[in-house]
Amino acid sequence: MSILKAIWRIDEALDVVKGQIVAVERHMSVSLVESVGKIVAEDFYASCPVPHFRRSTMDGYAVVARYTHGASETMPAMLSLCDLSPASWARVLTGDPIPSAYDAVVMLEYVEELNDGTLLVSRPVAGGENIMEEGEDISAGSLMWRRGVYISPRQVGVLAAQGVTAVKVRDFRVAIISTGNEVVPASTWPEVGQMRDINSHLLTSLCREAGFMVQNCGVVPDDPDALTFALQGSLKSYDAVVLSGGSSAGAADYTERVLNQVGSPGVLVHGLAVKPGKPTVLGVVDGKAVVGLPGHPLSCAIMAEMVALPLLRHAAGAILPQPRFQVAELSRSLVSAPGRRDFVPIRLEGRQAIPLLAKSAAIQVLAQSDGLLVVPEDCEGYNAGREVVVQMWRSV
Amino acid sequence: MSILKAIWRIDEALDVVKGQIVAVERHMSVSLVESVGKIVAEDFYASCPVPHFRRSTMDGYAVVARYTHGASETMPAMLSLCDLSPASWARVLTGDPIPSAYDAVVMLEYVEELNDGTLLVSRPVAGGENIMEEGEDISAGSLMWRRGVYISPRQVGVLAAQGVTAVKVRDFRVAIISTGNEVVPASTWPEVGQMRDINSHLLTSLCREAGFMVQNCGVVPDDPDALTFALQGSLKSYDAVVLSGGSSAGAADYTERVLNQVGSPGVLVHGLAVKPGKPTVLGVVDGKAVVGLPGHPLSCAIMAEMVALPLLRHAAGAILPQPRFQVAELSRSLVSAPGRRDFVPIRLEGRQAIPLLAKSAAIQVLAQSDGLLVVPEDCEGYNAGREVVVQMWRSV
Repeated sequence: MSILKAIWRIDEALDVVKGQIVAVERHMSVSLVESVGKIVAEDFYASCPVPHFRRSTMDGYAVVARYTHGASETMPAMLSLCDLSPASWARVLTGDPIPSAYDAVVMLEYVEELNDGTLLVSRPVAGGENIMEEGEDISAGSLMWRRGVYISPRQVGVLAAQGVTAVKVRDFRVAIISTGNEVVPASTWPEVGQMRDINSHLLTSLCREAGFMVQNCGVVPDDPDALTFALQGSLKSYDAVVLSGGSSAGAADYTERVLNQVGSPGVLVHGLAVKPGKPTVLGVVDGKAVVGLPGHPLSCAIMAEMVALPLLRHAAGAILPQPRFQVAELSRSLVSAPGRRDFVPIRLEGRQAIPLLAKSAAIQVLAQSDGLLVVPEDCEGYNAGREVVVQMWRSV
Repeated sequence: MSILKAIWRIDEALDVVKGQIVAVERHMSVSLVESVGKIVAEDFYASCPVPHFRRSTMDGYAVVARYTHGASETMPAMLSLCDLSPASWARVLTGDPIPSAYDAVVMLEYVEELNDGTLLVSRPVAGGENIMEEGEDISAGSLMWRRGVYISPRQVGVLAAQGVTAVKVRDFRVAIISTGNEVVPASTWPEVGQMRDINSHLLTSLCREAGFMVQNCGVVPDDPDALTFALQGSLKSYDAVVLSGGSSAGAADYTERVLNQVGSPGVLVHGLAVKPGKPTVLGVVDGKAVVGLPGHPLSCAIMAEMVALPLLRHAAGAILPQPRFQVAELSRSLVSAPGRRDFVPIRLEGRQAIPLLAKSAAIQVLAQSDGLLVVPEDCEGYNAGREVVVQMWRSV
């Protein structure tokens, strides 16, 4: 057994690995409702104007705006139906086309229709009022969004407006593997010395939430042949592999050896200047990211968020919206070693940010936390009462 | 055609409707990975301690802590293997059980093992260091979370740790109906005077994102018999119905008439003191919420978020995490009528909150916005440059 050899700053490590990853271009077609939360595979340009004709946005009367100028309740504008051009009017409902002779719609409430066809308008309208011009909302040919964005329900609305009912989304495939002789499937009753497989379920859920297609490959024992077989098989069928386990220096070395054997360049980073998550292994095989996360669930979850997902999103060409931050007041002091980036699970209670201090083997704090406080490398900690910025978990 | 009769404040309207809704208790069992984003149906208590035995969190040596006190590199503590009790030690790997004779683990790095079985420890450990006691993370019987919360990937980790691989989630079923003679399916090419069905896709996506089971029932024409038939059928099979269309006063009246015919109490609210979204209709039939949203897509999306989803979540017993807010500086002044709550789509650019002013029939601004600015009833607007709080959309 040996201790970790080189310790990387997390940003440098991510850059080095990203530089060796080959982006995946494969896509698949899914229905509108299935596209939500997926990564869109193409730039999306509007193919038709919205609305596709000049339409009323109100129930009322199409008129020529200038003939209503100066109208009031005591002195309504009088528009006759008989005249063929300027002063005439037409009843319209919301969504009705507006003939080019009119340039505004007066709302129902401000109009009285007399028996002889004369219209009394008690309030002036401006040109264009209550009318949507053809293409006013969306003009044909305009760029709606770039490929790589995550589809929201609101974008589904725009897609439907464009007549799109199947969406090309990125088909990025991730294999998840838990390792360890002591790890048993979550459905079994563990003996003393054994531990249920937590990480493969956590990682599968996180990767699905990130818009990837995910295969949970279950648990592989600490055996070079078994791990080599699993890794080679996964690399044949998937675009990235996320392993967890081997949180100790010895076991991480072992992941490193196998990773270097299955292809090149193999391991690029082994050991990060972070807490928790130091024994993280990052490699690339034939352009595909292989991420070896610590086995301790808390370390695994935090490194998944901070290392694995950024690398996989890069490989999938995903553009992530800015992380959500919340400003709060630290409830107690935190000490951090300089040169190391710390990630502290935080629960928010009102204005207070409460650090959930736990051993990295803990799991409960994960479910209790609302996000992470990132203590940067050049900071030795924060005093209680200080305003800090909490990076919130994405879900729900 | 008549204009809207009573105008409700949105909070009062929600309270009145919630008071008539009967909560749905039905649940279904789904796999761990499928449970993410769903509403959990039961309080979740831990059934077993985590860890379920006293274990090492490090590779190293199990020792009695007090025999390492005062140890240093120049003066290491010497622990002999031969002694049967206090001074003995045992090699352990991460996750190994720790016999009760030991109360700490010294990390590999601070130990030298001599050939005669003597251990040189160059750094003291405190009692309990690098050991997780049985139940230290999770004690058996403790409450993990209340029913009604949305499951996150981190909670999936806790469920796996507890050996749970199938989760009881709320089976709340929503029917979505678009109405309007001018509305045609999104897949068709609309004639002049027609409009593609945007709302049913938008609403289906929003309701799925909210953890409901959703059926998109498509478009129903403006015909009392057709709407009655659709509504009766939906109320038989679903727990709530969300209609859209009839954004005009006339058409909304028409939804109201049909709603009052299909059951009681029928319509409770018709007309909200909001912009956009005034012609919203809220009703309850036999304890089930029926929400009639405006047909204009922007109004529909905003009222879905602010009215339909809160009512449906209430009916499904969902506990929503606090909305996410972002503080930003308003890029231009906004005027609002007192007594009315305004919702303004906002795009964030750096520190700036940019109001996306558009007619309520618009759809593009939805996709461009990051959230909504809520201008309350007692506020006449905000000046440019003022700090405002933007309520962010949930997705991604």
